[in-house]
Amino acid sequence: MSDENDEKVLFKPEILSTVKVHAGYLHRIKHYSPCNKCHMTFAIYIPSDEDDFPVGNGNARKMPLILYLSGLTCDDTNVSQKGNAFETCKQSGVCFVMPDTSPRGHEKIDEEESASWDFGIGAGFYVNATTKGYAEHYNMETYATKELEQVCKSIDCINDKVDFNRQSIMGHSMGGHGALTLALRNPGKYRSVSAFAPIANPSAKDCPWGQKAFKGYLKDENEWKMHDATELVKMMEPGTMKTVTKAILIDQGDADTFYKTQLHPERFQEAAEKNTKGFMKYNVREGYDHSYWFISTFMHDHVAFHAIKLLST
Amino acid sequence: MSDENDEKVLFKPEILSTVKVHAGYLHRIKHYSPCNKCHMTFAIYIPSDEDDFPVGNGNARKMPLILYLSGLTCDDTNVSQKGNAFETCKQSGVCFVMPDTSPRGHEKIDEEESASWDFGIGAGFYVNATTKGYAEHYNMETYATKELEQVCKSIDCINDKVDFNRQSIMGHSMGGHGALTLALRNPGKYRSVSAFAPIANPSAKDCPWGQKAFKGYLKDENEWKMHDATELVKMMEPGTMKTVTKAILIDQGDADTFYKTQLHPERFQEAAEKNTKGFMKYNVREGYDHSYWFISTFMHDHVAFHAIKLLST
Repeated sequence: MSDENDEKVLFKPEILSTVKVHAGYLHRIKHYSPCNKCHMTFAIYIPSDEDDFPVGNGNARKMPLILYLSGLTCDDTNVSQKGNAFETCKQSGVCFVMPDTSPRGHEKIDEEESASWDFGIGAGFYVNATTKGYAEHYNMETYATKELEQVCKSIDCINDKVDFNRQSIMGHSMGGHGALTLALRNPGKYRSVSAFAPIANPSAKDCPWGQKAFKGYLKDENEWKMHDATELVKMMEPGTMKTVTKAILIDQGDADTFYKTQLHPERFQEAAEKNTKGFMKYNVREGYDHSYWFISTFMHDHVAFHAIKLLST
Repeated sequence: MSDENDEKVLFKPEILSTVKVHAGYLHRIKHYSPCNKCHMTFAIYIPSDEDDFPVGNGNARKMPLILYLSGLTCDDTNVSQKGNAFETCKQSGVCFVMPDTSPRGHEKIDEEESASWDFGIGAGFYVNATTKGYAEHYNMETYATKELEQVCKSIDCINDKVDFNRQSIMGHSMGGHGALTLALRNPGKYRSVSAFAPIANPSAKDCPWGQKAFKGYLKDENEWKMHDATELVKMMEPGTMKTVTKAILIDQGDADTFYKTQLHPERFQEAAEKNTKGFMKYNVREGYDHSYWFISTFMHDHVAFHAIKLLST
């Protein structure tokens, strides 16, 4: 009880807004982030428990959680407004948490010459930075995998409803990179993993986004492959994908202008298939681009994919 | 053939973008609007005919159309990005057209003192203005009921797919007012009518939005009731609602801050029920507000409601 109060003092969570949508509630919450040394804002959708929904075994009235990591330039509002996730979350009885894509409000960092749409604000890349200036302020891996959960547990209206022992992870583009790498770096933490058009091989020379971000955030080039989903899988013992997670799903639009110039999802697919045959489902979707029009079309499939894993024993 | 070419020259339609979403195509189109004497932009969603969908009788391969009228401050992008309409449109084989809410780009009008968020740009109220300054430039009733259809017919990729003889109309807030009044003023044109939180009695003293708009756009106060859904129904002969349209659906959130201060949907319901008992379905939705969170929750119901009327013989 005193721990909980300590965390309330530490994080100072403030509910900015609550709105009813698809028979559930969408909260936007601002809080202090000790790991990023700034205030952060995230959103969480919680289906109402007044309706009937599957609650899984054991934790009656507590629902599992999908962590959604957004892409470059986004915050929580892009996916909450355009992602088309909540109807399926409500039908499945699954919560959906949407963190920001970087720390914000570090004046000195925000004004640096290197700051741009694909580096710095809105582009945290879900790594803990090790370079000067960023190491103390850009710790999005810790934030996404640990601190955000602690913040959620310190807020009664979330802690009362969410079973944090059942989590899955997904993301789009930079957030797809985040979902794949954070799952691979935290084996067993996420029951299932999915991505829309992920940056799947960011340390490769033909991935300018990854090159720029890793150069800026990671001091030693030897660290790069530890944050590259394709390289991480290549390092694993054969047949060990099942120790990481139960299933992986990736969707990629073939009209996505970044498909062959930045993302390279087939490299991850090939490495994963080589490790454990038939472990991942990879779909190339004809005519779809890199936008939320693509995501909103297949979001139902992804949420349902996770729900099946999260609701089974 | 020459008529068609004339209209192409007249409207000069330009497809600004086409994106694939829910196995269909969303086009954004800019064109010259003779009735508003400015360029206008609208969007239209057309399900792909490569998939199986109901095509109704007669017009094989041509799909019916829902006209969606947006609320104050909006343009086509609010409902296209946040409205959650296209999945159900695709499942039903129904097109969805989204006009702007006012003319734009009339410098003199746009700079007037009276211009504000609820008058002028983004607030055309779907009437043909009769006041000085606006009469020549603000003709949104003609635009929504006639000109937009002519523009669509002049564009091959729309004309080839849409059966303009089967249309329904719907809208939100100011657009709900538009849907109800345009249907009542054009009996038989729209097979079904629906609205989210409509401004249902705009000429009433306790509707500040309507008072401001009608004062600004309509020269003679006697014109007001001809653009007020509740007043229009009161003027109709008893039992004649079925000559207007086949069915009406209204949804209203009870946490909508404008519910009792601007909208007054029950006044329309009462008048409609008095005219033809059981003709309209009216739902008060507990806990929902005036936003697109509310609309996205019940959009499926509305699109399906229209589809049933549009696809039946």
